[in-house]
Amino acid sequence: MSDTVDLNADMGESFGPWVMGQDAELLEVITSANVACGFHASDPDVMARTMRLAVDHGTGIGAHPGFPDLQGFGRRRMDLTRDSLRNLVMYQLGAARAMAAAAGGTVRHLKLHGALANMASEDAEMARACYEGALAVDPEIIVMVLAATAQQEAVEALGCRWAGEIFADRAYNDDATLVDRSLPGAVIHDPELAGKRMVEMVKAGAIITESGQHIPAAVDTICLHGDGKTALEIARSVRDALTGAGVALKRFAGRQGRISST
Amino acid sequence: MSDTVDLNADMGESFGPWVMGQDAELLEVITSANVACGFHASDPDVMARTMRLAVDHGTGIGAHPGFPDLQGFGRRRMDLTRDSLRNLVMYQLGAARAMAAAAGGTVRHLKLHGALANMASEDAEMARACYEGALAVDPEIIVMVLAATAQQEAVEALGCRWAGEIFADRAYNDDATLVDRSLPGAVIHDPELAGKRMVEMVKAGAIITESGQHIPAAVDTICLHGDGKTALEIARSVRDALTGAGVALKRFAGRQGRISST
Amino acid sequence: MSDTVDLNADMGESFGPWVMGQDAELLEVITSANVACGFHASDPDVMARTMRLAVDHGTGIGAHPGFPDLQGFGRRRMDLTRDSLRNLVMYQLGAARAMAAAAGGTVRHLKLHGALANMASEDAEMARACYEGALAVDPEIIVMVLAATAQQEAVEALGCRWAGEIFADRAYNDDATLVDRSLPGAVIHDPELAGKRMVEMVKAGAIITESGQHIPAAVDTICLHGDGKTALEIARSVRDALTGAGVALKRFAGRQGRISST
Amino acid sequence: MSDTVDLNADMGESFGPWVMGQDAELLEVITSANVACGFHASDPDVMARTMRLAVDHGTGIGAHPGFPDLQGFGRRRMDLTRDSLRNLVMYQLGAARAMAAAAGGTVRHLKLHGALANMASEDAEMARACYEGALAVDPEIIVMVLAATAQQEAVEALGCRWAGEIFADRAYNDDATLVDRSLPGAVIHDPELAGKRMVEMVKAGAIITESGQHIPAAVDTICLHGDGKTALEIARSVRDALTGAGVALKRFAGRQGRISST
Repeated sequence: MSDTVDLNADMGESFGPWVMGQDAELLEVITSANVACGFHASDPDVMARTMRLAVDHGTGIGAHPGFPDLQGFGRRRMDLTRDSLRNLVMYQLGAARAMAAAAGGTVRHLKLHGALANMASEDAEMARACYEGALAVDPEIIVMVLAATAQQEAVEALGCRWAGEIFADRAYNDDATLVDRSLPGAVIHDPELAGKRMVEMVKAGAIITESGQHIPAAVDTICLHGDGKTALEIARSVRDALTGAGVALKRFAGRQGRISST
Repeated sequence: MSDTVDLNADMGESFGPWVMGQDAELLEVITSANVACGFHASDPDVMARTMRLAVDHGTGIGAHPGFPDLQGFGRRRMDLTRDSLRNLVMYQLGAARAMAAAAGGTVRHLKLHGALANMASEDAEMARACYEGALAVDPEIIVMVLAATAQQEAVEALGCRWAGEIFADRAYNDDATLVDRSLPGAVIHDPELAGKRMVEMVKAGAIITESGQHIPAAVDTICLHGDGKTALEIARSVRDALTGAGVALKRFAGRQGRISST
Repeated sequence: MSDTVDLNADMGESFGPWVMGQDAELLEVITSANVACGFHASDPDVMARTMRLAVDHGTGIGAHPGFPDLQGFGRRRMDLTRDSLRNLVMYQLGAARAMAAAAGGTVRHLKLHGALANMASEDAEMARACYEGALAVDPEIIVMVLAATAQQEAVEALGCRWAGEIFADRAYNDDATLVDRSLPGAVIHDPELAGKRMVEMVKAGAIITESGQHIPAAVDTICLHGDGKTALEIARSVRDALTGAGVALKRFAGRQGRISST
Repeated sequence: MSDTVDLNADMGESFGPWVMGQDAELLEVITSANVACGFHASDPDVMARTMRLAVDHGTGIGAHPGFPDLQGFGRRRMDLTRDSLRNLVMYQLGAARAMAAAAGGTVRHLKLHGALANMASEDAEMARACYEGALAVDPEIIVMVLAATAQQEAVEALGCRWAGEIFADRAYNDDATLVDRSLPGAVIHDPELAGKRMVEMVKAGAIITESGQHIPAAVDTICLHGDGKTALEIARSVRDALTGAGVALKRFAGRQGRISST
């Protein structure tokens, strides 16, 4: 049972003249921000503003690299070589570190975005290539992984620092995968329910599935969303439910990966 | 009179499937490489390869940021705000630092590319915005400037580390500007002449103009080109002439800018 | 005195996941739509949707080419050769024609966007290069020009079909240029005032300056905006004032340029 | 048995300052050119030059759309919706039509590029979406398909005009698929052998597999390559072998697809 947890959300996803998200409001709720790095969203100006905002709020800063696909917002799968994945993560992390530094902050974690994250949660080799890129730039970086997926396998094999993440608004199957979005109940829209579930999972240190099973998991941080009508309500409800239940909200410390013997 | 000088050239200007330049050959000649950062040329894969090459040759590594204009190769003037200039330099420098670090190297200098460099050599405020971006990321970075231009004014006002650059293959007017390319003799194509001139200027610590005037200048590094038929010949001739004249070729150390009283 | 006028607005300026403008609402007001072509905004999916919307509303369709600068939304000046301008207009117009055709419509006019338009309104040679590109693709296209600027000079010299445009929400100087945005009264925010002014100018067939002077002008279409708080209110007020004053709103027919003797 | 055949090659694959291919030399050999449209390669300036070259040589012009991925040269698989595929083909075809028209030519065929082509040769639904995009813009366009693949299924189902293509330099399996590149003999490097094989296949009106089987096929055009050391030699050898064997080289006429009853 844990009595602290981190709340994270994607941030800085505007681009040029186009605004996305409710960054200022979310920053009042979260403890860690995943900052887009210019490949699937953002640009140097948006990053500079976002880093400043995050520093001003004392929010933990993460680089949030994605596929080089602005039109598709990094949500379209692309077939890249391991080397290209490694290099693309290095590049984006480097840009994020510079923008954070110039704003007086530091990038302490990394989280993959969109289709890159989805593919890496199914393919540990692909996750590993991405994370190796990050670690080549900063061996101390904390890799945020979807708990109980191939992403977690990868960080454990690498032996690096990491933190496990669960979703505030998604139902889980008994194998710890997410219930398919096309099924009823897959996405939780009720802020109160979202809050209640998160308190249970954090207190249990487990993913609680739709059928009620408990799967012990690294519940270090909760992923909140910033878009959609109820996103902000859910974010606030989760925060309030957790603090109401005596769970302290603060940045994850980072676990140490088990160095794989293979 | 100086008995050492640095030789620099742009590098890593391929993009995706398209190859440019003769990086491997030039790396046998130069002591500092200006590495493109993905905005006017290059991509994360090209950068990774280029940084590895530079590290393997023990070449001094510089970030070479440009305008976000691949099609125009950063050679088309763009009208950006000071803030955008600052942010664009930060971003590209950050990417370069990460790619260099992952290859076991370090970015020690910064040189502006193409139209960004041309505009900054005419406008000290614009140069200053770019260099402030670089210094916000790395206060110890050495800014490479076109000697006796507004770029030099900017580094002197900022009080940062810098190095002055002259061209191996361009004739100078009496006010230290370059002879217009449309005029005869503006570009030097004769490798032997290029070598002879560089020895004279390095020994004199001055830009020697077409009319023979000596303008005392910070001759810390000589800009060589990598494209064009005679580029490599000129590069080798300059190197050989300098070493033949007893000038040691090594990375510039960096001057300290005079901190402006304004 | 004219008793009909066209109302135009920019449209289809979303990009990928990012939404901009109030296209559906504006289409209820305007008679001509300037559709972004993917260089400063839009993408093939947004264009397909926009063309369908315009066809469904019976709105006149125009191609709205801009500089290749998504981040800057085509609002940053770029220094391109005449040839590049010509080619960039051809390319974007071609894309627009295909997307319109696939939706059952036709591109009948062309209007330059952002910095490209601003530069062309100051430089008739530059305007001419752009318009030549358009006419090489479609000799019958109607070029929409800012009345009494270098854009108008260019179409008159080319002898092509054109239509003159005035702004609903901008004050004019006595030389027919726009009052600088930094001056009080430069931008009109009062919907009622905007409507009243447009009735006067359309009836007078003239630009009426701040000082009250009448400059005879080709008042064929009025430019409305889709962003900003009061944009839609102004658009509706202009429409209502015009129809209330007996001015029919319909697509411009296109004037024939005087073929210059030079 | 056929006594005429078309020779096609990709063309206009330079981008900005980066040159690719040997277009001028290939244009002396081919009868149809597949012109890149700016998404995986090329830009408006390159397209303008390429169209002019093709028109000057009397070469049949085709649009060659690809994925929006310059860095990957359209060779990396991307997961796009059917709608996005349709729109992306429309857009690129439209641009090509305009650039061709401005050069005094006409786009008469369409051929998919790179990963888009590979995916469409395995998935008839995906091929269909792409071709529907093209036909919505020009119902008379001739779709060039890889003979005996899902691309051919798609054109037959659509009932549109089409032409079948075989490779000059690739060995075939008995199911008409290409021998995997990793296997010996998969790629033919010997110009003489390539020429001999093409004569046999054209005369047979069949793909002749490695094992010697004849698979009757629509051998309307032969794909030649423009890069690689021996590409030009192979192209010339194929041309000479065919003309030496009495096969006339000319643009394909286009077959009419069987309209599927489904």
